[in-house]
Amino acid sequence: MNLDNVYKNLTIANNSKIALVVFDGVGDIATETTNFQTPLEVAKTPNLDKLAKKSAMGRMIPVAHAITPGSGPGHLGLFGYDPLEFEVGRGVIEALGVGIDLKAGDVAARANFCSLDANGLVTDRRAGRIDTSVCEKQVDLLKKKIKKIGDVDVIIQAGKGHRFVVVLRGPGLEGPLTNSDPGREGQPIAVAKPVESNPKTEKTAKVLAEFYKLALPLLKNCKPANGFLLRGIAHQPHIPTFADRYGLKAACIAIYPMYKGLAQLVGMTKLEGAHSLQEEMEMAVEAMKMYDFLFIHVKPTDAAGEDGNFAAKVAAIEEADAALATLIAANPYVIVVTGDHSTPVPVKGHSWHPQPVMITGEIAGWDGMERFTERAANHGSLGVFEAKYLIRYMQANAKRFDKFGA
Amino acid sequence: MNLDNVYKNLTIANNSKIALVVFDGVGDIATETTNFQTPLEVAKTPNLDKLAKKSAMGRMIPVAHAITPGSGPGHLGLFGYDPLEFEVGRGVIEALGVGIDLKAGDVAARANFCSLDANGLVTDRRAGRIDTSVCEKQVDLLKKKIKKIGDVDVIIQAGKGHRFVVVLRGPGLEGPLTNSDPGREGQPIAVAKPVESNPKTEKTAKVLAEFYKLALPLLKNCKPANGFLLRGIAHQPHIPTFADRYGLKAACIAIYPMYKGLAQLVGMTKLEGAHSLQEEMEMAVEAMKMYDFLFIHVKPTDAAGEDGNFAAKVAAIEEADAALATLIAANPYVIVVTGDHSTPVPVKGHSWHPQPVMITGEIAGWDGMERFTERAANHGSLGVFEAKYLIRYMQANAKRFDKFGA
Repeated sequence: MNLDNVYKNLTIANNSKIALVVFDGVGDIATETTNFQTPLEVAKTPNLDKLAKKSAMGRMIPVAHAITPGSGPGHLGLFGYDPLEFEVGRGVIEALGVGIDLKAGDVAARANFCSLDANGLVTDRRAGRIDTSVCEKQVDLLKKKIKKIGDVDVIIQAGKGHRFVVVLRGPGLEGPLTNSDPGREGQPIAVAKPVESNPKTEKTAKVLAEFYKLALPLLKNCKPANGFLLRGIAHQPHIPTFADRYGLKAACIAIYPMYKGLAQLVGMTKLEGAHSLQEEMEMAVEAMKMYDFLFIHVKPTDAAGEDGNFAAKVAAIEEADAALATLIAANPYVIVVTGDHSTPVPVKGHSWHPQPVMITGEIAGWDGMERFTERAANHGSLGVFEAKYLIRYMQANAKRFDKFGA
Repeated sequence: MNLDNVYKNLTIANNSKIALVVFDGVGDIATETTNFQTPLEVAKTPNLDKLAKKSAMGRMIPVAHAITPGSGPGHLGLFGYDPLEFEVGRGVIEALGVGIDLKAGDVAARANFCSLDANGLVTDRRAGRIDTSVCEKQVDLLKKKIKKIGDVDVIIQAGKGHRFVVVLRGPGLEGPLTNSDPGREGQPIAVAKPVESNPKTEKTAKVLAEFYKLALPLLKNCKPANGFLLRGIAHQPHIPTFADRYGLKAACIAIYPMYKGLAQLVGMTKLEGAHSLQEEMEMAVEAMKMYDFLFIHVKPTDAAGEDGNFAAKVAAIEEADAALATLIAANPYVIVVTGDHSTPVPVKGHSWHPQPVMITGEIAGWDGMERFTERAANHGSLGVFEAKYLIRYMQANAKRFDKFGA
């Protein structure tokens, strides 16, 4: 029997609220360079400590043993979707992030302006990182002139800096296609080709080639941003919604576009307007009146890990901990704190190291840990498990599952 | 999606070296008869202790929950091949071990001389454990007279004591066949029959029946070894090579034939000439110049466990630990110490108890354990996992995997 169906058949409705707080990339490792400690161990975290005393802990494998996930697979796992089954192109994530309401079958690409020399060779893959305002002006130029290619609608939207998004909407389109970004300077723009050839991917490649033919002349005098590159060209996969799958009315509170995009992809409502961790938590408390499930995304922990900055990661954890007080005071029935993956300071990037997870609730059970750390989590009752099962523990702790069998 | 393909697509090349040191059967259990301690706990292991401080630990299930593996499945798991998917006949392993270069499609059988009475009943299944020299003489007799049966070449090679190997090479052969060993004295030699009947297995059975018809008369006067029994009759399976699967140029350093055979089966180069643990480690250090991956096999730990000799197992661990100093000094980027299974002293044989594993490396992360023992490993960040994933953690720790998704 399909396990997802088993879970679905056991699902029951109630009013208990669940808050999933993702400290992005929070997991870390203790090495000689970090004085054999992790940022979670060093940080002062009175609020996490308070949660620890009514929590079950464990560690989670984001995708599969030893695989380092990008943010997309990392979050899909947390949302209960096997990242190996539900693959999402970066273009799709970016499109959702800038607020394009994707429809099934749309093909989306992550685009950015670049600089081309007289021979059409890429001299700067980021066009000198032009201002968002310049990007918006140039995107307007393209939008006005290119609305349709054959029977395909072309949707273009500016992002931050040199970045924008291109979405193709029409019959018979499909990804993925290879990047038109050659990956390094001194090369011409590459041709985006089907990863697997079929009539739909071939049509998509043709439309994109035509798009280049129409768009490049329009940018001819737009130095330094007189060209553009496409990456992560893929169609929106069909993903069952959060409401369907879990019976949960869910909302997303995040500051960065990509995380909002990921949440929308699974059918969460995107709540806008928070600009700080404190504002995110306040918004979450307000949203608890309307929603069953709150996904709250905390970015600074990941950024500090990427920078290899131990002190900054400690500070980011302490800031997030302080903001948590607001959420705790509102007393959601279940609070989960975890990461979407580890971003260890010694690695300076995402990694495969299982992230620690803490599930707090009335009936979570205390594992005896005084604090929420990687090494405390090693001793937890949840063991090491795949992240895609976390949602099931949240449902169970929220008393939203019936008994299986008599 | 096939997970092996996912891993393959993520694989990247670099120059980091990986050493897999297998303390055969090192895992043990603490019982009243062992004063509630294990050999790893009692042994003085300054080198393992040094590694522990930059290691992630866990325990591994060699095949599947509660299954006790032979050496074949145990090692295949360590090499990243699911032992339930890649079944290798004991005959194949023995043939590789005595240095026969098997070709795909060859059928190999583990053979041993036995004693028959006048009625053809087996009176001693091991022919009084005759000397190797006697075995060699009798095998020479068979080799001279039986070279071919129909279109099938017959390759016979002596092993140690009463043991030898029979390999059939020709078109349309296949295993597995049932043993001709009746399993107990007082029975006649059994007929080796196809486990699943098809033209290839039937042909193989016919050839072996003919082999018996030709060979037994030749041994008529060779008391006490006037008969022989066949076991583990199987063809060499197609196994993707280590290089193909992991992008690793791998070498094997072992003293006993079977382990060399297993390593060769997955495409490792067999390095010959080491006669002690110290020589094995020296050879490994030298081989690091040429190879990415070194499999170093340490036998005495298993032998002591099989004998139920606690003190001998402690001594074997201490000797291996001393030899490790040479390897550690050469500073491979990743060192893994583990067993292929447990061989607990109180069990006096292989067992299912998950073997402890320690992955040492620059970005392994310290789990807080001061020593490498079974009970320390219970608290490690790797949890309890299937041995076939160990290779993936080695690849990840050697920075030989790209990120999955954006």
